Amino acid sequence: MRFDVTILGSSSATPIYNRNPTSQALNINERIYLIDCGEGTQQQMLRFDVKPGKIDHIFISHLHGDHYLGLIGLLSSMHLNGRKKPMYLFGPPDLLKIINVHFEYSWTALNYEIKFYPTQTNHSELIYENQDITVETIILNHRIPCTGFVFKQKRPLLKLNADQLEHYEVGRNQFFKLKQGEDFIAADGEIIPNAVLTIKPEDPKSYAYCSDTLVEDSYLPQIQNVDLLYHEATFMHDLLSRAQETHHTTALQAGETAVKAGVKKLLIGHFSARYKTLDGLLEEARSAFKTTDLAIEGKVFSV
Amino acid sequence: MRFDVTILGSSSATPIYNRNPTSQALNINERIYLIDCGEGTQQQMLRFDVKPGKIDHIFISHLHGDHYLGLIGLLSSMHLNGRKKPMYLFGPPDLLKIINVHFEYSWTALNYEIKFYPTQTNHSELIYENQDITVETIILNHRIPCTGFVFKQKRPLLKLNADQLEHYEVGRNQFFKLKQGEDFIAADGEIIPNAVLTIKPEDPKSYAYCSDTLVEDSYLPQIQNVDLLYHEATFMHDLLSRAQETHHTTALQAGETAVKAGVKKLLIGHFSARYKTLDGLLEEARSAFKTTDLAIEGKVFSV
Repeated sequence: MRFDVTILGSSSATPIYNRNPTSQALNINERIYLIDCGEGTQQQMLRFDVKPGKIDHIFISHLHGDHYLGLIGLLSSMHLNGRKKPMYLFGPPDLLKIINVHFEYSWTALNYEIKFYPTQTNHSELIYENQDITVETIILNHRIPCTGFVFKQKRPLLKLNADQLEHYEVGRNQFFKLKQGEDFIAADGEIIPNAVLTIKPEDPKSYAYCSDTLVEDSYLPQIQNVDLLYHEATFMHDLLSRAQETHHTTALQAGETAVKAGVKKLLIGHFSARYKTLDGLLEEARSAFKTTDLAIEGKVFSV
Repeated sequence: MRFDVTILGSSSATPIYNRNPTSQALNINERIYLIDCGEGTQQQMLRFDVKPGKIDHIFISHLHGDHYLGLIGLLSSMHLNGRKKPMYLFGPPDLLKIINVHFEYSWTALNYEIKFYPTQTNHSELIYENQDITVETIILNHRIPCTGFVFKQKRPLLKLNADQLEHYEVGRNQFFKLKQGEDFIAADGEIIPNAVLTIKPEDPKSYAYCSDTLVEDSYLPQIQNVDLLYHEATFMHDLLSRAQETHHTTALQAGETAVKAGVKKLLIGHFSARYKTLDGLLEEARSAFKTTDLAIEGKVFSV
């Protein structure tokens, strides 16, 4: 099952050096889950071939402009391009008021429904679930209420071993039970263990998104052992006091968090406009946690 | 005196083919007057080296997203980059409500003042004046209240002819009167006509911006004889009924309007996403009015 993330924006508050404000397109089994939507996200989607028609779920972490100012334009374009199916939108309660103000004053009645789920910003919760995944919020500590998100694949059904099915003459009506892990009882009463007839699928993957926040142990349990962790790293560690003042994280702290959480891989992003090149940030995060990459525009990372 | 316009966006509602929503930076005597501010305008300003610090006046035509969704991000970035001087903002009355909603929910108190002037949308008015220019609104006919803008240079002071000043022994204390057109009375009572002592400056220039609108004769008097007319041309004329339905103009109509108004030069823009290339639109407008150009991203047109 496809599970990867395309980076649409990597900058913090102000766009610069061809870096755009935060947005990521998470593709899980050919459904795209859009995480944050800074200004220019729809232009970035065009640039990196992320199809708006595949997006049915949008997750907004908080109401600083660099995380949502592209949303109204994206929703408008979807309307103008004939979208009919509903859009599921998750974000802080006031997000809906902001959207409504825009559409009120542009005299726009969308020709599709926005199904809005207001995220709680004081406790973590399961906000979405389908056959492939669950999505939970992570309570972060920013200057305004802010949540991250953990996307966890559900354990997929077992795969059938075609050769063995033929060998044991297993009827089609047994397939679903086998996929769920049941053993097979042959016509002669012999019990064929499930493991003989099925192939173990890959372990379910998980992706955690943490932006923007002071680094804290409070959310470690939720990101423990994820396959890919995105963590903001707005500053280098020589600006720790600035990071603390603005409720952000340093590249070193992001690396240390990855170590503590035992994740497999780390992406850092949300870079301050003061960094023209990003090598220093990457090096600093890698000094704590080696398998770190820069979440920069157009890059696609497999989870 | 410098007087030119840099095109930052040329697309109508939805951005596509590297075309951005509408925005233009009008440079008059090294002050930049920003006209409309679609999503991504601040990124376009970076791309085409338009300095935000030179902008003290922003004019928004109407509240469709493709004309103002970049404004909140631009104002935020100016705040984050330490702006202190006030910003003069002109636009429909509800624009201020939209801005306030964003800053309320992001807990932002700007460290500079927005001096907002709500434009009347039922009658034309003089909305701004300084030593260089006047700015008047044009009442357009769109689906929601919409104004265009005419920027007119004031007639500049006369220039002094240094050789003649020396010849007639004109004292410095007379210079300002001469620049204003007065004659000079020499010590012996001889009247030296102003024209002898001064050089006629260039005629004052004018720029008119008309987007979005049904084409109408009602605003012809205001754009009569302007040096440069920007007029939207969303569709080609085979889609006239679509243009009328959506209150837009065709390229042919834009060209005909330029003829009727006796303007010196025409720019067309606000192109529908259905046009991958723009040659057809240009050709059609030129069939009516030869000195037409495409208002495309990054182009700078002298007024």
